Amino acid sequence: MKAPEKGSWTMRPIGHIGSPYRAAEEVPRGPGARHETAGTLDILPAYEAGLKDIEGFSHLFVLWLFHQAATHDLVCIPPTDSRPHGVFSTRSPRRPNPIGLTVVRLIARRGRRLAVKGVDMIDGTPILDIKPYLSSVPESALTRGWVSEAEARSQARKRP
Amino acid sequence: MKAPEKGSWTMRPIGHIGSPYRAAEEVPRGPGARHETAGTLDILPAYEAGLKDIEGFSHLFVLWLFHQAATHDLVCIPPTDSRPHGVFSTRSPRRPNPIGLTVVRLIARRGRRLAVKGVDMIDGTPILDIKPYLSSVPESALTRGWVSEAEARSQARKRP
Repeated sequence: MKAPEKGSWTMRPIGHIGSPYRAAEEVPRGPGARHETAGTLDILPAYEAGLKDIEGFSHLFVLWLFHQAATHDLVCIPPTDSRPHGVFSTRSPRRPNPIGLTVVRLIARRGRRLAVKGVDMIDGTPILDIKPYLSSVPESALTRGWVSEAEARSQARKRP
Repeated sequence: MKAPEKGSWTMRPIGHIGSPYRAAEEVPRGPGARHETAGTLDILPAYEAGLKDIEGFSHLFVLWLFHQAATHDLVCIPPTDSRPHGVFSTRSPRRPNPIGLTVVRLIARRGRRLAVKGVDMIDGTPILDIKPYLSSVPESALTRGWVSEAEARSQARKRP
């Protein structure tokens, strides 16, 4: 699926997100935001055969488009902090390639519609790919840089 | 970054993978394949500012291009099994949108080069995006469908 221009690639949706969120501002963000929201992955008829055996997986990676992001910033201040960070250290929608990544829990499949929990995309978001979630990095092995520091500062501010 | 054609998006590399693997056939695959291979994420000078504060994260998601995949199959037989599965239930390179996803461990940053462990891409693979790995699904909550079944069949065949 190479694009006409050398060194660039053209992506097309394989389906769309069904979500209760109508605008990006409605999606919960910041420290402590839980993503248990129910939604759907509605796959286009042309790609339905690609869902074979997906029912067996409890969790899926969903790759999707920040289709409303018009441009990108290399450094940004995320909603979880008051300090600037590099875009590749954040989940900012304003990325050089505007691809989002969300882990969802698969609840049920009905034909080419997957009922899932954990959506943080807005309704109608184009889906680029779905992959099985096969293994995890143990929480004990994870270091989360500025995110942990921002959470600690936020907690400190809340203390009386 | 909208493409000229309505409903499609154009992606461009932000950098390239440095890897000891020169061809896809060299990358270890199948049940029990461990991915501890050392490599680099070499980010283009134009995007270096986007790496600010990335040193603080132990693990990163790397989104990259299966740049050698010319077409896609909706159903395929993966190297880990002898049975066909839908492409969205597998990590096959022959996907409608040929995007790969790998979790790597960040070892060190030297300017716009990130030394990492866990590469399963070939040398020169274009990188589309890097995101911080922030949390894991507990292994106890994971179900891995046909992958577990194929592993069980493989183990059963190995028994005397």
